[in-house]
Amino acid sequence: MTGRGRGRPRLVDESGGNRAAIVASARELFSDHGFDRTTMRAIGKRAGVDPALIHHYFGTKDALLVEALRPEIDVEAVFAGVDAVHSPGIEFVRRLVGFWEGHPEARARVIALMKVATTRDEIAAEMREFQLGVVRSALSRVVTDDDPELRYGLVATQIFGLALMRYIVKVPAIRDATADELAALVGPVVQGYLTGPLGAPAARR
Amino acid sequence: MTGRGRGRPRLVDESGGNRAAIVASARELFSDHGFDRTTMRAIGKRAGVDPALIHHYFGTKDALLVEALRPEIDVEAVFAGVDAVHSPGIEFVRRLVGFWEGHPEARARVIALMKVATTRDEIAAEMREFQLGVVRSALSRVVTDDDPELRYGLVATQIFGLALMRYIVKVPAIRDATADELAALVGPVVQGYLTGPLGAPAARR
Repeated sequence: MTGRGRGRPRLVDESGGNRAAIVASARELFSDHGFDRTTMRAIGKRAGVDPALIHHYFGTKDALLVEALRPEIDVEAVFAGVDAVHSPGIEFVRRLVGFWEGHPEARARVIALMKVATTRDEIAAEMREFQLGVVRSALSRVVTDDDPELRYGLVATQIFGLALMRYIVKVPAIRDATADELAALVGPVVQGYLTGPLGAPAARR
Repeated sequence: MTGRGRGRPRLVDESGGNRAAIVASARELFSDHGFDRTTMRAIGKRAGVDPALIHHYFGTKDALLVEALRPEIDVEAVFAGVDAVHSPGIEFVRRLVGFWEGHPEARARVIALMKVATTRDEIAAEMREFQLGVVRSALSRVVTDDDPELRYGLVATQIFGLALMRYIVKVPAIRDATADELAALVGPVVQGYLTGPLGAPAARR
């Protein structure tokens, strides 16, 4: 039990390794014990760094949390060419659900972020920018309005409501559907929000 | 500081007042300090009852939490006649958003429930039954399928996604819209999920 054991804080050094170690340790501890019960001291101990270094890099525990929970998604790659197909709305839902299915860790981070977002406005703001950012990046070439923000917001209500019911509330019919099935069911709605008439009177549908 | 101060536990009595006092105290403490940091002892102290009485009435802290956070909504009254109008989907969204707007406390409870649902499957199951129950009660006469659960589930993705973006994530375009505007924007989608074709190929919309 000698040498650089986990419990032995190193002093400040400027290598990027410390920063990554802090984020990884914070992620593990937040996940295991919850945000409230995780101290900066415990994160420092696990990462093998002085807690002062955490403050130096991240400032607050809130900021460290957002850094730790931001899902790693390469939006450009996941949604490449989504605007070139007949129905970008359907293709977008198919790719998005496909990404969630293949990346349980990213999903777990979004769920953890949502949990804290319910009580902390700063986290909610970060989450908002992240979620709208995904929609904007993937679909900005599809929306031709002068003011597309209402359309992006409506898309967000549908796709993150889908995530909520599939992964948190776990409604059986939604939880058990495949990415293709959900694309066919929900994709046309997303397409309507992107390019259809908005707030039209109740058409017979 | 004599008499029946808040801090002086009463012994077991069978009046319904104690039960209500426990639920009210739990609600306040969960809200102020969070679920994890609220002890049965603190709830008992605030309610002025012996903590053993809480176990007697509710069993676990989880069960007490669900009881404390279940929103009080008279579904029959709020959605009376919703199935008798031209577009029940639009009317349903209008009434639902109207209810949320007029009942910030019920909203706060759903948000609190959602927060714990992200980490506790039992709470998620309670939330699922509550949310689907609202949809079923309000709209069961509108859906004429043999197997309506997929339709109810799709409605849930849209309306609770709307709540998520309006009240938690706070997307400006969704947060600032009126109940009538949201009914016009989102109601036709709900109507489509209730009575339209499901999983149809991408129609031009």
